[in-house]
Amino acid sequence: MSDVDDRLIKLEMDVLAANDKVAAENRNYFAEHNILALNLVSSPGSGKTTLLCQTIDALKNEVPLMVIEGDQQTINDAERIRATGCRAIQINTGENCHLDAEMIKDASAKLVPEDNSILFIENVGNLVCPAAFDLGELCKVVVLSVTEGEDKPLKYPYMFNASKVMILTKIDLLPYLNFDVEKCKQYAKQVNPDIEIIELSSTTGKGMEKWVNWLKSHRK
Amino acid sequence: MSDVDDRLIKLEMDVLAANDKVAAENRNYFAEHNILALNLVSSPGSGKTTLLCQTIDALKNEVPLMVIEGDQQTINDAERIRATGCRAIQINTGENCHLDAEMIKDASAKLVPEDNSILFIENVGNLVCPAAFDLGELCKVVVLSVTEGEDKPLKYPYMFNASKVMILTKIDLLPYLNFDVEKCKQYAKQVNPDIEIIELSSTTGKGMEKWVNWLKSHRK
Repeated sequence: MSDVDDRLIKLEMDVLAANDKVAAENRNYFAEHNILALNLVSSPGSGKTTLLCQTIDALKNEVPLMVIEGDQQTINDAERIRATGCRAIQINTGENCHLDAEMIKDASAKLVPEDNSILFIENVGNLVCPAAFDLGELCKVVVLSVTEGEDKPLKYPYMFNASKVMILTKIDLLPYLNFDVEKCKQYAKQVNPDIEIIELSSTTGKGMEKWVNWLKSHRK
Repeated sequence: MSDVDDRLIKLEMDVLAANDKVAAENRNYFAEHNILALNLVSSPGSGKTTLLCQTIDALKNEVPLMVIEGDQQTINDAERIRATGCRAIQINTGENCHLDAEMIKDASAKLVPEDNSILFIENVGNLVCPAAFDLGELCKVVVLSVTEGEDKPLKYPYMFNASKVMILTKIDLLPYLNFDVEKCKQYAKQVNPDIEIIELSSTTGKGMEKWVNWLKSHRK
């Protein structure tokens, strides 16, 4: 093993240990304030922001909601969220490929989420790297669009294994695609037998009720 | 800056320098054998493998073709390529988020691409990390599916800046989507004024001729 490989492995362990320490602090903070924090992960363009906008519309009169947006560049997503009336803060990661616990700690200190709220954290679009980083969330929710192909849970197993829920989005496009929903669900269960699956279209609203009920049932 | 941050920056520079050295060796090897090597990058599920299968069908009687496939897990993509009659080798990166030059060096030694061939390297589906890693290719070709939304060049500018060509795929789905092609092209040019853009559907074949001609014109 080369010197660089050796240093890389040691450093990765140190980076993850430092991250986990801050993630534990975030988790305590969320618990103290009874905040349900969720970490939404996916490929770019799976429809996370659109799903969040629809979720906010469905819940905003019942539950305090807040959003932390992660992207390499632009403040587009935070602006889309704010247009719904919901408070949102944008993190730009620059060249970095994922959010980390320190970024969430800083953003939470600025946003000051209300007690008893739901805090949605929309991660950078990336089915690989965010899998390893705990942000202090209750769980990861992986969003997979049916346009991406049913084999993605097998090809990116770490992310589907790290997630408690898979939301299968854009199901309104199924008539125009060669996508086998049952096979996709079977692949997801293969890498994570306990994963919960919600099929959903933000365009038609199909499946939204199940997702909204899932959110309500996970509040304390 | 913390000790971990400091070590991270130094190590990243060392990792990239070590990679660039091997990438230069690969580039020399490809030049000596007159191999046109292309690095296909995109989000998961943009349609890279389907595009490659169609490209192979269009070119296999004229040009020797070979494929190196990168995925975290599974040998699905190499099998799909081999079903076309084309030689292919699969690299599984495990937890890693991108191919590097050393992997391509090893895979090339096993595959032994023919002189005067086109070597397609299909990277791990990830719009972030592969941007920084030179594999020794002539250029990166970024594949963006119209289902992902037109804002992706602005949100992932490093990848679109690092690419010479953008192939806009799945254009057969445009009638069912709210996707502004002109805006997307404008965003891509904003982060990379020199980027060449090809609109394409692997399903209907529209745009394939332009892509195939691009390939032919870049052979020596």
